[in-house]
Amino acid sequence: MLKEELNLKEKLNRYLAQIKDPDTAAMANARARLDDLAKPPGSLGKLEEIAVKLAGISGGMVYDTSKRCVIIMSSDNGVVEEGVASAPQSVTYIQTLNFTKGITGAAVIAKQFNTDLIIVDVGINADVNHPQIKNKKIRKGTWNIARREAMTYDEALRAILAGIETAVEAAKSGYKIIGAGEMGIGNTTTSSAVLCALTGISAEQAAGKGAGLDDQAYQKKIKVIKTALEINKPDSGDPVDVLAKVGGFDIAALAGVYIGCAVMGIPAVIDGFISMAAALAAYRLNPAVKNSMFASHASFEQGYAHASKALGLEPPLNLDMRLGEGSGCPIMFAVMDAACAVIRDMGTFAQADIGADYLDKVKDGDNFTVNK
Amino acid sequence: MLKEELNLKEKLNRYLAQIKDPDTAAMANARARLDDLAKPPGSLGKLEEIAVKLAGISGGMVYDTSKRCVIIMSSDNGVVEEGVASAPQSVTYIQTLNFTKGITGAAVIAKQFNTDLIIVDVGINADVNHPQIKNKKIRKGTWNIARREAMTYDEALRAILAGIETAVEAAKSGYKIIGAGEMGIGNTTTSSAVLCALTGISAEQAAGKGAGLDDQAYQKKIKVIKTALEINKPDSGDPVDVLAKVGGFDIAALAGVYIGCAVMGIPAVIDGFISMAAALAAYRLNPAVKNSMFASHASFEQGYAHASKALGLEPPLNLDMRLGEGSGCPIMFAVMDAACAVIRDMGTFAQADIGADYLDKVKDGDNFTVNK
Repeated sequence: MLKEELNLKEKLNRYLAQIKDPDTAAMANARARLDDLAKPPGSLGKLEEIAVKLAGISGGMVYDTSKRCVIIMSSDNGVVEEGVASAPQSVTYIQTLNFTKGITGAAVIAKQFNTDLIIVDVGINADVNHPQIKNKKIRKGTWNIARREAMTYDEALRAILAGIETAVEAAKSGYKIIGAGEMGIGNTTTSSAVLCALTGISAEQAAGKGAGLDDQAYQKKIKVIKTALEINKPDSGDPVDVLAKVGGFDIAALAGVYIGCAVMGIPAVIDGFISMAAALAAYRLNPAVKNSMFASHASFEQGYAHASKALGLEPPLNLDMRLGEGSGCPIMFAVMDAACAVIRDMGTFAQADIGADYLDKVKDGDNFTVNK
Repeated sequence: MLKEELNLKEKLNRYLAQIKDPDTAAMANARARLDDLAKPPGSLGKLEEIAVKLAGISGGMVYDTSKRCVIIMSSDNGVVEEGVASAPQSVTYIQTLNFTKGITGAAVIAKQFNTDLIIVDVGINADVNHPQIKNKKIRKGTWNIARREAMTYDEALRAILAGIETAVEAAKSGYKIIGAGEMGIGNTTTSSAVLCALTGISAEQAAGKGAGLDDQAYQKKIKVIKTALEINKPDSGDPVDVLAKVGGFDIAALAGVYIGCAVMGIPAVIDGFISMAAALAAYRLNPAVKNSMFASHASFEQGYAHASKALGLEPPLNLDMRLGEGSGCPIMFAVMDAACAVIRDMGTFAQADIGADYLDKVKDGDNFTVNK
C-alpha cells in the first residue's frame, strides 16, 4: 500500500471503530413500555420493532423524527460506454440540477414528507459549480469496469470518507434521520457487479433491467458484469477492493453515509437496489453498521431481494419502485413517524381504564366475558 | 321477505345501482401525464397505479388527500361467550371511549397523519351516550353464532345502511379519503366465519390467533367457526345472508362504508383482516365497489391473505400489524399523499431539460451515451 492509502485506510478504520453497540437497556425499556400500552402485546408488529431499534440507536425512549434529510450521491460511471444504460450519461448531471429545482421524483416526495435534500457531487462527469450541490468530487466519472478497475483503491477510500463526512456534517447540523439516495446513469450495472462480488451470486441473479432496458441490452449488461468480474478479480473479503474494482463513486460514498450515520448514532434509511448494495458493502466493513440501518421498500430490481437477504433487513414497503434518487426514503420516514407516535402518545392499560388484570389474563390465555 | 325487509333491500339496491364506473378518460390522462414526467416510464410503480386509480374515481388529474378520516365501527359479538377472545367484552366499549380520548393505537397514528376519527356505535353492549360517538346502534351486541344466527336479515340490512349513511355523511362534510376500522371483541371469529362462507376456505385457513390466543383457545375458535357455519348454513351467494348468519354489526356496517364511499366517488382504504372481510362482502354485493377501494397493510392474521386474494387487491405495506381499529389506514394515506405529490409536482421531461428524444429512445430500447 502507498503511504497515502495507508493514511486513508487508518482514517476509515478509526471511524469504523467508533461505531457503538446498541443500547440494550434503552431497548428493554422501550419494549417494556410497548408491552404496557393498551393493545395486545406485539400487535403493532414492525412499528414496535422500529421503536425498539430507534431506542437502541439513540439510548432514549422516544425518538424525534421531525428533522430529516436524504443525502443524494451523484456520480458518473465509465461503463455506460458499453451501452448498458437506457439514458444518456448527461442525465446524471441534468437530474442533479433538477434536484435543486425540486422537480425530480425524490425531490417531490421528500417535500411531501418535510424532508430536505443534501445533494452531493461525488464524481459527476461535468464541471459542477452550484451553491446547492456539495462538492466532494473524486473524479469526473469512473473508468469503464468492462475494461479496467472503476477507480484506484485510494479513490475508493476517499469516496467512502466523503460519504462518512457528509453524514457526520448532516448529523452535526441537526438531522435526526438520514436517507441514502443516488443519481448515476449506469449504476445498476455497477451495483450488480458489487453484489456479485460480495455475495457470490451470478450476474443473471443480480442484474435487472435497470430503468428500462430491452432484452438485447439486458443480455449485454449481464455480459459486461461478467467481464468486469473476470478482468478485475475483486477481493470478496475486502469491500473497499470490491468498490474500487467494480463499483462507483456513488456506491462507495453511500457506503460511507451508512458508516457516518452509525458513528453519529443516527438512523439511516436504505432506498432501493443501489442504496442496498452500498449498505451491504458498509455492513461487510463493520457488521455493527446494521444496527442503525432500516430497509424501506422492496425495489422492483431483482437484485434487491438478494442484497436485502444477505444484509438481513426486510423492507416494510412493497411499491414496485425502481427510480432510485432516494425516492423511497421519505415514505419510510412516515412509517417511522408512526412508530415514534405510538411509543410517545399511546395510553397504557392503566390510562385506558382497562383492568390491570387484562394483560396477565391475555398472557395466561384465560378467556372471559363481562357485560353479558 | 317481510315488507320492512323488502323496503330496506330496495334501499340498499338503490345505493348499489348508483355506483359509477371509473372515469377511463381521466385514467388515460393521468397515465399520459405520468409517462411524461422526468423518470423512466413506470418506475414509480404502485405510486403511479394509485394516482391513476384516484383519477378514475374522481374524474380529475390531481387528487387532494388533505381532508381525511377513519370511520370506526364499534359493536359487540355474542360469540365471545364461547371463550374465543383474549379480552373481555367490556374492552369494546372502553376502547371506543378511548378513541375519543386520542390514546388508542389508531387514534395516535391517525393524529400523526392529520386524520380525523369518526367513531360509530353500531352495536356496543352498553348504554352509550357520548357527543363524539355517533349513535347508529342496531342492538346491544349480536347473538352467539355458535348457537344461532348473529342477527336477523333485517338487522343486517340496517347495519349495512348505517355504514353507507355514515360514509355518505362523511363525504358530504368534506372528507376526501375514508379509512375503515373497527372495534369489537370477538370479531376475528365472526370475520373468519364470513370469509369461509364467502370463499369456501376452511376454518383452519381463515382463523388466526386474533389479538392473542393460546393454542387451546385457538382450537376452540376453529370449532366455533365450524359449528356456526354448520348450524346457520349461510347462503354464499347472498352476502347479506352471510353477514346476518355469521357476521357482526361492525362487519356489516364496514361493508356499508365501502359502498357509501363508492356511491360518493371517494377512495376507501381497507385496514386489516376484519376490514378486508367486510370489503369482500361489499365487493360481492357489487364488484364495482372495488374500483374505489385500496388495500393498505398485510395483516398478520392469516385469513387476510385469503381475503385480499379473493378481492384481488394487494396491500403495499407489510407491517405485521394485527391491532385493527383502522390503525393501518393513516399510514396508507401517507403512501397516497406521495402518489398525489408525484403527479401534481414532478417536472415533465421538457421541464427537466431532458431532450425530448430521451423518452422515445427509452421506449425503443435504444442505448446511447454522451459526454464521453
